[in-house]
Amino acid sequence: MVAGPGHFVVVFWSRRNGADHDGYNAMAAQMVHLATEHAGYLGHTSVRQPDGEGITLSYWSSEAAIKDWRDHVDHRLAQARGRRDWYEEYRVEVAKITRSYQGNKTKGDI
Amino acid sequence: MVAGPGHFVVVFWSRRNGADHDGYNAMAAQMVHLATEHAGYLGHTSVRQPDGEGITLSYWSSEAAIKDWRDHVDHRLAQARGRRDWYEEYRVEVAKITRSYQGNKTKGDI
Repeated sequence: MVAGPGHFVVVFWSRRNGADHDGYNAMAAQMVHLATEHAGYLGHTSVRQPDGEGITLSYWSSEAAIKDWRDHVDHRLAQARGRRDWYEEYRVEVAKITRSYQGNKTKGDI
Repeated sequence: MVAGPGHFVVVFWSRRNGADHDGYNAMAAQMVHLATEHAGYLGHTSVRQPDGEGITLSYWSSEAAIKDWRDHVDHRLAQARGRRDWYEEYRVEVAKITRSYQGNKTKGDI
């Protein structure tokens, strides 16, 4: 992950309805593909529990890049489908990173 | 969740070793209890996949509150145990929220 202080993180918390139906996985993969090619995209991480609660973090070089991605026409369609068909509840925070650090046992730095 | 623009989010991403051993759950519960009582704590959410990858978001009123909690003696001990016994890899970002929004199907706002 190349994100650090001065970059932005978008926190997307969501609770999905149970079934993995209606093309959710295909849409999610397509959105990752599109985001990856979007100007200012730095990386993302996604975690979801079997009960449907999940968090996706995406990292961006600037707030302008995030707004541009938010308004991307295919992403807008995906958001609408998500609200209608897939998400029971969601929460989004856009935040500017002030500090970051990490450790990795395999690399011997923890 | 009462956090919004001007507040801070701490993103803690981690990959745990497999076993749920050595008192991890008890320590995690104790840390949540302590954090909840800490000045400036606003809330938290935690998600973990069966493969051990997880994200904990905690929300704070200020960066000073986060530093104070980081340096809490019991939290320091928990961090050391985590690095030694529980985490294969982790990443932390402290970030200041600039925008936030949410939706809830049950409440009818999505």
